[in-house]
Amino acid sequence: MEFSSKLLENAVNEMSQLPGIGKRTALRLVLHLLRQPKEQSFLLAGALQKVREEINFCKSCHNISDQELCEICTNPMRKKELICVVEDIRDVMAIESTGSFKGLYHVLGGKISPMDGIGPQDLNIEALVERVKSGAIKELIFAMSPTMEGDTTNFYIFKQIQDFDVTTSTIARGIAAGNELEYADEVTLGRSIIDRVPFEASLKL
Amino acid sequence: MEFSSKLLENAVNEMSQLPGIGKRTALRLVLHLLRQPKEQSFLLAGALQKVREEINFCKSCHNISDQELCEICTNPMRKKELICVVEDIRDVMAIESTGSFKGLYHVLGGKISPMDGIGPQDLNIEALVERVKSGAIKELIFAMSPTMEGDTTNFYIFKQIQDFDVTTSTIARGIAAGNELEYADEVTLGRSIIDRVPFEASLKL
Repeated sequence: MEFSSKLLENAVNEMSQLPGIGKRTALRLVLHLLRQPKEQSFLLAGALQKVREEINFCKSCHNISDQELCEICTNPMRKKELICVVEDIRDVMAIESTGSFKGLYHVLGGKISPMDGIGPQDLNIEALVERVKSGAIKELIFAMSPTMEGDTTNFYIFKQIQDFDVTTSTIARGIAAGNELEYADEVTLGRSIIDRVPFEASLKL
Repeated sequence: MEFSSKLLENAVNEMSQLPGIGKRTALRLVLHLLRQPKEQSFLLAGALQKVREEINFCKSCHNISDQELCEICTNPMRKKELICVVEDIRDVMAIESTGSFKGLYHVLGGKISPMDGIGPQDLNIEALVERVKSGAIKELIFAMSPTMEGDTTNFYIFKQIQDFDVTTSTIARGIAAGNELEYADEVTLGRSIIDRVPFEASLKL
């Protein structure tokens, strides 16, 4: 791609560093910004600069936060002995939006993935083990995505903390609400039969 | 979507103003930036700010340029009496990459589209008419996209300049190189038969 302007070329190159955005899309986005009032570009540039410069991670759960401790960790209504282990902040947002979880979180910041060169030392696993060692935690819920990497991460953490007095569980795998049974994959359907729940318990939800 | 950080929320909101980028994609992009070295965000923010602040449009053809006149307009090898009228800079880049055009351009900056509230006064049409009036132009090539809006724009410009001593043409519609004839739409195939070219002329390309 040949550009008639170095400034434009530079902006397109930087924009196309983002995942899923190629040179053509980047050019489309930058040209869109050029057609909008200047303020829009300045607000975007400012917001990106500020978020990267000033962002904090909660000291306890590693969730993104503007304070030292996030709002969830400092909320006195949450059960401090119940920890949900998730991959990143998007999972926290997804679980929070269900309103079904009243404990705290621990954000690992990724999952163990040798293919991508991500090992346990790159994640916030040590901090989690410390939290367990401190004795304040009664149950860990593993809420990683049900993939090979997610399962590996769960198992690695489990091995680190199995000698401590803490219960571990994983989120239930099963047929999603509204899905047709016949289109479910075998693994999920099999798990949903093995992990069946008493009918009366299911009525309470 | 509930965010645990105002900074993050702000960045996601600004990012999701871009066309084709929703809140979820914006969150994914911002989280990606947070995982990368700070420099990447700063370079992106800086490039966006700089391009919007300092971008120039060529005084003559309205192409994006770092100088007052773009490299194409100042190139003594280009034919100054032949003008290709295009919608935006991406079309200039596409035509330049063919190497088949040795004239100058005129970038309209959009096309007449009443549905989107874009009228002739929002485009660089007046400047084009002035260029034609000055008498230095012998031929205008309309290279708008073959859509309703493109055709409307072509016709509007044609009406404005038809009394002047200038030839007008449009780029040829026809079967694209490498395409199967049977899958071409009727309009295109019909035009390609009406606008057929002498076989010997086609051999020269």
